[in-house]
This record gives sequence, C-alpha cells and structure tokens, in this order.
Amino acid sequence: MGRAFNFSAGPAVMPEAVLQQAASEMLDWHGSGMSVMEMSHRGKEFISIYEQAEADLRELLAVPAQFKILFMQGGGLAENAIVPLNLSQGGAMDFVLTGSWSQKSLKEAGKYGQARVAASAQTDSFSTLPAPATWQIGADSRYVHICGNETIHGVEFHELPDLKALGCDAPLVVDFSSHVASRPVDWSRVGLAFGGAQKNLGPAGLTLVIVREDLIGHALPHCPSAFDYKLVSDNQSMYNTPPTYSIYIAGLVFQWLKKNGGIAAMEQLNIAKAQLLYEFLDSSSLFENRVAQDCRSRMNVPFFLRDESRNEAFLAGAKAANLLQLKGHKSVGGMRASIYNAMPIEGVQALVAFMREFEKTQA
Amino acid sequence: MGRAFNFSAGPAVMPEAVLQQAASEMLDWHGSGMSVMEMSHRGKEFISIYEQAEADLRELLAVPAQFKILFMQGGGLAENAIVPLNLSQGGAMDFVLTGSWSQKSLKEAGKYGQARVAASAQTDSFSTLPAPATWQIGADSRYVHICGNETIHGVEFHELPDLKALGCDAPLVVDFSSHVASRPVDWSRVGLAFGGAQKNLGPAGLTLVIVREDLIGHALPHCPSAFDYKLVSDNQSMYNTPPTYSIYIAGLVFQWLKKNGGIAAMEQLNIAKAQLLYEFLDSSSLFENRVAQDCRSRMNVPFFLRDESRNEAFLAGAKAANLLQLKGHKSVGGMRASIYNAMPIEGVQALVAFMREFEKTQA
Repeated sequence: MGRAFNFSAGPAVMPEAVLQQAASEMLDWHGSGMSVMEMSHRGKEFISIYEQAEADLRELLAVPAQFKILFMQGGGLAENAIVPLNLSQGGAMDFVLTGSWSQKSLKEAGKYGQARVAASAQTDSFSTLPAPATWQIGADSRYVHICGNETIHGVEFHELPDLKALGCDAPLVVDFSSHVASRPVDWSRVGLAFGGAQKNLGPAGLTLVIVREDLIGHALPHCPSAFDYKLVSDNQSMYNTPPTYSIYIAGLVFQWLKKNGGIAAMEQLNIAKAQLLYEFLDSSSLFENRVAQDCRSRMNVPFFLRDESRNEAFLAGAKAANLLQLKGHKSVGGMRASIYNAMPIEGVQALVAFMREFEKTQA
Repeated sequence: MGRAFNFSAGPAVMPEAVLQQAASEMLDWHGSGMSVMEMSHRGKEFISIYEQAEADLRELLAVPAQFKILFMQGGGLAENAIVPLNLSQGGAMDFVLTGSWSQKSLKEAGKYGQARVAASAQTDSFSTLPAPATWQIGADSRYVHICGNETIHGVEFHELPDLKALGCDAPLVVDFSSHVASRPVDWSRVGLAFGGAQKNLGPAGLTLVIVREDLIGHALPHCPSAFDYKLVSDNQSMYNTPPTYSIYIAGLVFQWLKKNGGIAAMEQLNIAKAQLLYEFLDSSSLFENRVAQDCRSRMNVPFFLRDESRNEAFLAGAKAANLLQLKGHKSVGGMRASIYNAMPIEGVQALVAFMREFEKTQA
C-alpha cells in the first residue's frame, strides 16, 4: 500500500515532509559526509542540530528563560521515577488520578517518598476530571502531579490548574507526553513538564523535560547520575551520550511546526479535527465516546461499538481502507483514534466517512 | 563532499548498506504504509522487527539460552547505576580500573553499595592491564566489573578473566560498549555484559544488556521500574516504550553482520585493520601509540604526534582528505582513530597513506 492514515497512540504518525527530509539526508547530512546517526555528539555538526532544535522548541512552546529544556531517555515511564528522585527530597507528593498514566506515576513515586492521592476520578471510570477546588493537597507537598492528557482514557485538562489560587505553593508537575506541542502551555502555572517524544515530537527513546531552574539540584543521593537534572542541565543534555538521531528528527518536527504556523495554528487544527470526530460519535447510533464533554481529549479519542461483536469487522474494514492502528488499549478495550499534530484533517475525514459507511451497511 | 571515512569514537560510522536500506524504507516499511518510526511497539509489524533483531543478535554473539537479551535506554553511563541497582543488593562490588570508563563505573556504583578497587593501571597512565592473578577480590563480592575495551585509553581485554580459576564465585560484569560484536564472547566467564549501541550496533539511545537469568530479580527497592531487569525481561523490553527506530536500525546492522560472515569474519577484519594501523604507528618517527602491545584496542587507537604543534595541521589535512573526527578525547589529547566494524579496511588504508604522506612533507 502507499502511505496510510495511522491512528497509533504512540509511536505515532510523523509529518510526511519530515520523513522525506530524513530519508534524503540519511547518507550525507548537509554535505558533511556523514549521516546524523554517525556524528559525534561533541562535534560542531551535531551541536548545531542540537542548538537549533532547542531554540526552535523554546520558541514554539514559548518556554520562559528560567526554565531549562532537557533531552533525556527512558520515556514518561522512567520519568515517573526520575521526577520524584529529583524533586521529592524524600517528602510527600500529591497526585490527581485521572487515568492509567497518573495511576502509574503515583505508584512509582511511592518508592521515593509519601505519594498521596489528592483527587481521583476512578469512581467515574475516569470519564471526568476532578475539579481543582476539590483537590486535597497537603501543606507539606513537594509537588502536585497531573497527567495533562490521559492517552488511554482520553481525558485532557483544557486548562492547567492554578495551584496558587488554591492556596498551594507547591510546584505543578505535568506529564504532557501525549499532548505536548498540540496547544500552548501556561508556564506561570508549571514547575516541571515531561513527556516521551513518541506522540507529538519524534521517535520513541527521546524524553523531553522542561523544568524551572529552582527545582534543579535537589536530587536524592541514590538518583542515577545520568538522570540527575542538575548534571543533565549543566552538561546541555550531554552528560551521557544523548539519543542524537532522535533529537535530529524532533528538530525536523519543530521546523515543520514552525512552517505550519506554530502551536497556535496547530491548536486550531487539532480543535477542528477533534470536533469532527466527536460530533460524529455523538450523532452515531453504533459508535460512542464515554468521556464527559468538557474534558474530552483532542489527541486520543477512545470509542466503542455498542455492538462489540462487530469490533473485528470494523478493524478489518478500516485496515482495508488504509486506516491503521485503531484498536483500543487492552486495558479498556474498544477502539481509539489518536489524532496527533501530524494527522492531517483528511485522515479524520476519511475515518469519519468510513465509520458512517460502516454504520449504514452493518445496521 | 561524498561519504567520508569517519573515525568518530561514537556515535560512529554505520554500514553504508544499512543507511541506504533505512533511507529507502523510511516512508513505508515493507508495504505497511508506515515508517518504522510510526509503528506501535505492540503491533505485529514492530514485534516482527524486534523478534528478528533479538534472534539475529543471539545467533551472532552465540548467546546461551540462560541469558536474557534486554534492549534498554540511557547508554553505558546509565548502566553504571542500573547494574549496581540490580546486582549489588547493597553489598560490595569490585572494580578493575583500566581507564576513564571503569573509573566512572566505580564512582557511580559507590551510591549503591561498597565499590572497591580490585586492581588499577592508573600508575601506568592506563597503558597496561593489571594481570587477573593480581586482582584483590573480596569473598563477599557481589560482582567484579571490568571495561572490556576502554574507548578513551585504547586498551582492550583480549581474553576475559576466568574468575572461577581465581577462586572467585562472583559474576563478571563487562562493559562491552565499544567492542561488542567485534569479536566472540566467552559467555562461560560472563554474568552480565552491557553496552551503549552507538559504537558497533546502531544509533545512540539504545542500550544492550545481556544478563544471566539468575542475576535477574534482585533489584534494590529504589531501582526505577523502567530499569529493573526483571520488569524489562518479563516484558520483552517493552515495560516502557522501547527506542523502536534504534532497535530497527540495530537489526539492520545485525543482518549486515550476518551477510558479511558474522562475528568470526568481523574479528579477522578487525585484526587486519588494527594491525595495519599499529604497524605504521610503531614504524613512524612522527606518530606514536603509547599502549602496551598485548593490550592494544582493536577498536580505538589513540595516537600522538611527537611534535604536538602539528596537531592542527594534521587534523585540517585529514579533513581535506575526507578523514573525519580524528581528534582525541579532551581528557587525553592527541588523536584517536576509532575503527569499528563498519569502518572498511579502505578507510584505514587511506588514513595510513595520509599519515605517511603527512610525516614526509612535514619532516
């Protein structure tokens, strides 16, 4: 087949222009005689790639000067340990449970201090978000953790909580793995944000951490050096050899984002794509999304066939129509369409057209 | 320029055939409609890539069944913490110091238990290897750590120590980052071997760990889950999202190795390349290598100009001759030619020819 529409939750669809450029530069980057994969991370060629990527990302996300941008490894799951290793100082941390990922973060943090539940939407099957005014945050909290967008449950914070307004001085930690760069970030409300690259930024194996300077330098004694934010920051993310090729690809994605109007334009497109899909789901007699309207994710749209016996036929028909990787996460079942930045609106239109047709012919 | 001969210590030269295949498959892998970069790590396409890579590596390195192959992240430097987090049980560990990398391993391990020096070649400026018979290994040792090949100092163990013959029951841990797949491994002498991929296997950001099963399952309580060998092993290296594209590239390298005669053929070629370079260095009045003959690395050949005022001219001339990244590591100065598997003998011939010419014209 030719290029398909790929709804994978991550690793996920990449901009085709980025893949084309990467292919064309694979054997010889800009006349250097080398692939980017072959460059020393200390050489001037790679340093120029790295610096451009960091500057472009800082511009795109409007990251203030007092925040450091770190390129790390291990993904969001490793950060579930690395964040408390760096920020908890062995004290208490508060978690808002809104789905699988925040649950995982809570569990892992318990190794490094007292990990408490500030609020939970579990009794609603994670179909809602607990209102910030109801969160129970201890006065001794080292930080408050939220998952900005729950990739599996399909719920998203459309506004970051203002902890100061809640009388809380602790920094907010946001896992933004699956919606980074899909919308602007209000950095005045954030202490640290982290995310695996493999949804909206680039290849799996690259992790982005953006952290306020005053939160750096407090790692626990048993924090591995390679994951100590101070060492990573002091060495421009080159304390250990960084995932150079993945940083290069992410840099190409950043340039693609800039060429396409930046984060504001991307957000408008993401709103349009999500609206198209949710409006169809809400109008359908076969398909349904079960998340409360005000916290539906723009990135990950889980949906179910009311008649689950049709699941396999749906997936087979979708694949035949070049609509790939629509199967839902095994922990919740059903289907999921992940519609990250690189998914063109034509992909969502094709999906909705297919679903409409499937609903008719199977009725 | 066209493709150059690239002597970088890592990230390093890749087989050109691998880069060509990667470029040609970048937009659509085997008619899947996706780049490998875009595939879910849980999908059948990527699982097939992963399983093939693991099987090929097991065959190439003749890894016995009782060893697990883990694909991880963080590089050798992260493993300096991850190994003691998994193997030390908070007890004592013995380190043989043969250069910068074993020194780093020792220092990091001290966070997780008692890290002791069993032997050191520091007084010889790391130009020799301490004979195993002289190593001081405690009876309570959880493991004995060596760096199989010191990338910076250019010394290599040409035979792994037989700890049992020394009366030591502790497992041997080998950092084989910079000579993995360049020669066979005697697994009967090894408990665990680890290495960053970016020298002989593939892109930076992928870490290979090969560990005997009985050493798995003893992680310290504060070991991050993503780096707990048991969780990684039980989940076929997919406890967290693995660096999928890097595993794919490493898999292409494994296929290239198989097509070119496997590790035995590679070793013969590596011996020939190293011999060519060392013989020239030993015959030169301008250039010199300072490592004892019996422990010279086949992979990393540090050398010095007896007249260091000619260093810049040498590097500029080499670059003009398409011989790249020959500058030595800043901690030791001078030059270094890294001649990994993917460096063709033509590259070493071109380097020697250039050095011979440079020596003549500058005399």
